[in-house]
Amino acid sequence: MAKFIDLRSDTVTTPTPKMREAMFSAEVGDDVYGDDPTVRELEEFAAYKIGKEAALFVPSGTMGNQLALMTHTQRGDEVILGEDCHIFKYEVGAPAVLSGVQLRGLKTNAGMMDLEEVKAAIRPNDIHMPRTSLICLENAYSSGEVVPLTYLEKIRKIAESHGLKIHLDGARIFNAAIYLGVDAREIARYVDSVMFCLSKGLAAPVGSILAGSREFIEKARKYRKLLGGGMRQAGILAAAGIVALKEMVERLYEDHENALYLAQKLIDLGFEVDLKKVQINMVWAKAKDNLNIENLAYKLLQYGIKINPPINRLFRFVTHKDLTKDDLDYFLNTLQKILEEEK
Amino acid sequence: MAKFIDLRSDTVTTPTPKMREAMFSAEVGDDVYGDDPTVRELEEFAAYKIGKEAALFVPSGTMGNQLALMTHTQRGDEVILGEDCHIFKYEVGAPAVLSGVQLRGLKTNAGMMDLEEVKAAIRPNDIHMPRTSLICLENAYSSGEVVPLTYLEKIRKIAESHGLKIHLDGARIFNAAIYLGVDAREIARYVDSVMFCLSKGLAAPVGSILAGSREFIEKARKYRKLLGGGMRQAGILAAAGIVALKEMVERLYEDHENALYLAQKLIDLGFEVDLKKVQINMVWAKAKDNLNIENLAYKLLQYGIKINPPINRLFRFVTHKDLTKDDLDYFLNTLQKILEEEK
Amino acid sequence: MAKFIDLRSDTVTTPTPKMREAMFSAEVGDDVYGDDPTVRELEEFAAYKIGKEAALFVPSGTMGNQLALMTHTQRGDEVILGEDCHIFKYEVGAPAVLSGVQLRGLKTNAGMMDLEEVKAAIRPNDIHMPRTSLICLENAYSSGEVVPLTYLEKIRKIAESHGLKIHLDGARIFNAAIYLGVDAREIARYVDSVMFCLSKGLAAPVGSILAGSREFIEKARKYRKLLGGGMRQAGILAAAGIVALKEMVERLYEDHENALYLAQKLIDLGFEVDLKKVQINMVWAKAKDNLNIENLAYKLLQYGIKINPPINRLFRFVTHKDLTKDDLDYFLNTLQKILEEEK
Amino acid sequence: MAKFIDLRSDTVTTPTPKMREAMFSAEVGDDVYGDDPTVRELEEFAAYKIGKEAALFVPSGTMGNQLALMTHTQRGDEVILGEDCHIFKYEVGAPAVLSGVQLRGLKTNAGMMDLEEVKAAIRPNDIHMPRTSLICLENAYSSGEVVPLTYLEKIRKIAESHGLKIHLDGARIFNAAIYLGVDAREIARYVDSVMFCLSKGLAAPVGSILAGSREFIEKARKYRKLLGGGMRQAGILAAAGIVALKEMVERLYEDHENALYLAQKLIDLGFEVDLKKVQINMVWAKAKDNLNIENLAYKLLQYGIKINPPINRLFRFVTHKDLTKDDLDYFLNTLQKILEEEK
Repeated sequence: MAKFIDLRSDTVTTPTPKMREAMFSAEVGDDVYGDDPTVRELEEFAAYKIGKEAALFVPSGTMGNQLALMTHTQRGDEVILGEDCHIFKYEVGAPAVLSGVQLRGLKTNAGMMDLEEVKAAIRPNDIHMPRTSLICLENAYSSGEVVPLTYLEKIRKIAESHGLKIHLDGARIFNAAIYLGVDAREIARYVDSVMFCLSKGLAAPVGSILAGSREFIEKARKYRKLLGGGMRQAGILAAAGIVALKEMVERLYEDHENALYLAQKLIDLGFEVDLKKVQINMVWAKAKDNLNIENLAYKLLQYGIKINPPINRLFRFVTHKDLTKDDLDYFLNTLQKILEEEK
Repeated sequence: MAKFIDLRSDTVTTPTPKMREAMFSAEVGDDVYGDDPTVRELEEFAAYKIGKEAALFVPSGTMGNQLALMTHTQRGDEVILGEDCHIFKYEVGAPAVLSGVQLRGLKTNAGMMDLEEVKAAIRPNDIHMPRTSLICLENAYSSGEVVPLTYLEKIRKIAESHGLKIHLDGARIFNAAIYLGVDAREIARYVDSVMFCLSKGLAAPVGSILAGSREFIEKARKYRKLLGGGMRQAGILAAAGIVALKEMVERLYEDHENALYLAQKLIDLGFEVDLKKVQINMVWAKAKDNLNIENLAYKLLQYGIKINPPINRLFRFVTHKDLTKDDLDYFLNTLQKILEEEK
Repeated sequence: MAKFIDLRSDTVTTPTPKMREAMFSAEVGDDVYGDDPTVRELEEFAAYKIGKEAALFVPSGTMGNQLALMTHTQRGDEVILGEDCHIFKYEVGAPAVLSGVQLRGLKTNAGMMDLEEVKAAIRPNDIHMPRTSLICLENAYSSGEVVPLTYLEKIRKIAESHGLKIHLDGARIFNAAIYLGVDAREIARYVDSVMFCLSKGLAAPVGSILAGSREFIEKARKYRKLLGGGMRQAGILAAAGIVALKEMVERLYEDHENALYLAQKLIDLGFEVDLKKVQINMVWAKAKDNLNIENLAYKLLQYGIKINPPINRLFRFVTHKDLTKDDLDYFLNTLQKILEEEK
Repeated sequence: MAKFIDLRSDTVTTPTPKMREAMFSAEVGDDVYGDDPTVRELEEFAAYKIGKEAALFVPSGTMGNQLALMTHTQRGDEVILGEDCHIFKYEVGAPAVLSGVQLRGLKTNAGMMDLEEVKAAIRPNDIHMPRTSLICLENAYSSGEVVPLTYLEKIRKIAESHGLKIHLDGARIFNAAIYLGVDAREIARYVDSVMFCLSKGLAAPVGSILAGSREFIEKARKYRKLLGGGMRQAGILAAAGIVALKEMVERLYEDHENALYLAQKLIDLGFEVDLKKVQINMVWAKAKDNLNIENLAYKLLQYGIKINPPINRLFRFVTHKDLTKDDLDYFLNTLQKILEEEK
């Protein structure tokens, strides 16, 4: 198979040789019997790494988020979150089906809901209204922007003063931590539970982690079984997850540098990019009106390059460990050639 | 019992003598066996009056709205509606619990969602996203504003071109019809189902109507049983409902005139009221900064007058058949007296 | 309208003149604002009458039962109950939809589950299994049989030793109490919550009561709003409910006597009836093979008599306050005539 | 790590060297983008192997079963199934939470519900009752017994004549097929959908298959995303699944032979075993009263042998590919030694 240069998402990353070796030789057992030593090791290490009491290995980030909702809420509750966050937009309406909760979506700016709007959205104790019980945050946000610690501290205070819990969709929490120059624990300390992915930038083939208090994880573990997320010899996957957590976190820095490099070059080619918003491994680039971008995704595919089609001339490019600087240069050169031909 | 002058809501209306007589002599039977002739008469008359094939008597507007959601949607769907409408704000999060659907709340202006935002909110066919299946409207809106027919026509086209259904929360549809100067059927023709209340301005003690196609109502009837809304000798209540529909609709005009009268007098007393927004029987009046309104609700209660406390100095007053013009004058005089004393 | 002699159910009873008068003159208010004095009076009296801290007026027995399930359980729990009880068989699958709970139906004998089977059905603490949290009983049972206090005491002990709650579907609890010769409180004291109907034998047109601890009722009140069971001027119905509770309980004794009278006469006409099972107002009568019962329900209807068609030649007849002894004689004579003609 | 001899379940099987190699070198991609060639290959091969149009790879048998329920039913439906089958007993009450359906559990004998009871359990079209829409079967049954084709044919006819669908929990369908001496397709042709496990006897580390019509699988695929069962580079697991399906099915015969061998030897040691019921890889052995089995599981563990503790002196032993005949002899000898010491 020819190798593709794939800028669509960091979900496309393939496992490293070390991960493949770890999977090959993983000691496994039946995780439902608590017998899989590799899963146990991953869960303990993950909890340590994120600064929580306990952790749970789950097959996807969506399941991790949904388990958090099921565990923190009761049927009929309301959850406050950004209206364009992953849980609201990309999880198939699961919160209503699985937890029976209503979502109260607020506008976001740079990944942040307005704090006054958050306060106003918390329902009073009124027989007509659902009970607000949870706030969901996302960091880094799906926009590629990172929410600062000061904001987390403020929203934590609001939550505490109203008796609300906070769950963090930290699919890319390590990217956020690198941008902020802090340990990921510094982000996670402001929330009651956090989900992060071992796939995406960390390149494990499958799996995410849900972390929180020991009691929270025990409840979530039972809900995981209910959703069919209990896997038998899951140590195969956990083995790759351990490599991901131990060896792939630091190198996310390269992806961020590559994103900035890509962003600057795209500006040279006639795209508009707000460099301040290039904080992790994502570049949002708007094609100026003079660029002919018709069928661009299709044309690039002829050169072995995969991108997502734009929405209103706005492209999202994502860097990751399977994209070297040479790959980016190849992409940029090819892009330049196509754009010039089309003038 | 001393009579109170109650401006809190039109839900406080008490049955008329004619209703009490109708209830007293109502012919009843077991409605679950289809044996209650009075319920049958009400359902048939209500369907005729609103221009739909069939109708169902339900114990509350909330149940009527929720049955519409259950009947139009499948678990995991998404529903587009105003973020401050009754279904979103005042029905206890029921859509998630009963129907397993996610609400996509949009901002409204004068009771209307922006049509471009509605279009943008309809989800594409994407495996990550819930399926949009329903739009909910409200007319008159809880703000007291009436949505014009031209808007309904436009949103109908959007719904049809995307295969969506429309449900109308028409709790006060007859107020809206009077303001628009049309028959209520002219409003209802743009929607697949409509709920309206026999209580509120129409003054029946209990009950609302859900109307739609015959097939829709048959499905809703079974869901009504599931929710525990099937009542035995409901003809007692239906008898009052028939009086409400036959004799109380035209007189809503008086409530609207009284609201305008009240609004103008409140302006004289130093309140800000946007008269353009006084369209039905509701007046939103903001106390100017120089008015001392501390504990106003409590003070008025000493004079036998009930009002809701303001939110940020904004009061809502509602007129209805148990408030005569003399009652309003008594309220206005008392209010003036209190405000002058407090200067 | 010609009066029918209706033996199908006691749900067909129509309100007494006193109830109609009470409804006519009922003082009402908006019950959602807590302003309806008649509802408040009914709820307080009902709580007293059944020996519980608090009570809630609901539009149907089904809603009362479902509110109990919603309030006692959490999503994913399991409920132990008789597989032919009302909650399992006649409430449209509501427990799964509204509460997200699984029903564990056991065989019953004379309205009683085998106690050893109940114990065996309580799930251990196992990650694969739902959590058992509730037992539902029914007394009198839908078979017309009454569960003795000794049984209730035993099942109470089982429930307590496993930390389970008990809800009693006491739609006909006053019939049961009369048969047992005890106050209804003596039955209710073994359970955490109880629902009983004001309609059926007590003849109120609409409504049931859910009773339990004050905390339980407060939670149930909010769920009632979620289901759309909050009614505005419900005092109209509550007025009849007060008459039902105050004046109609004692006379249930007559219905029981009438049922026994009917049972004996049916035996004379060639039906098999187990007289030991005629404990309240229900008679189960099996037509012997030599009786021609083809289209019997239809034929009786020509004489103004309504019965349910039999299932496998087994008829259920129900006595109630709208059936006098003369009515029963008229029915028996007509039945005899038809059976003889058909020989 | 010392190797354990594990007779608790076939879920404990570890991947074969060939599986580990396949996983090591698996070509993967993002399965959510449809880019994982190995998953696609597995799904196509699995559909072919079971004789259905399409198949879906899922992380567990529980998820496969639950997706079938979600896809075949609508909220409020009822499902007929054995009261001791996996879906009822071991899936944490998921059908109520995820699908909002009520389970109608029937007694089973040798894994079969009585056909007359199945017919009687199908609800008539009655406004009080849930709609029956699905029958769930299990083959081989969790008792280790295999349901014959003649039974499947009869229940298929009942289902068709009532417009019901059938889902088969075929976690061990290949064991059943070997016992019946037919191709697994011969079993699957009587049902609308079937789930089978790649783990258990087939020894893949993680994963099951749900198969059915193309339309059914497309709906199930979206529900899989909702449950969080969409995995990124799932090809790692799928690679082992392909080996399982291609190379591990035929050898199940050995497990069956070993089970029979084990059963006969246990009889010699003083256990009661019904040899007619040893049909696949499970042996149910009851310790006679003269055997001292106190703490047997603990004692065996000292010798490196894992068994489940008995329930009422009844043990379940399961054979699988990680148990050779030598392992069984070691277990039997150790067991004999312990039993003799304890006399």
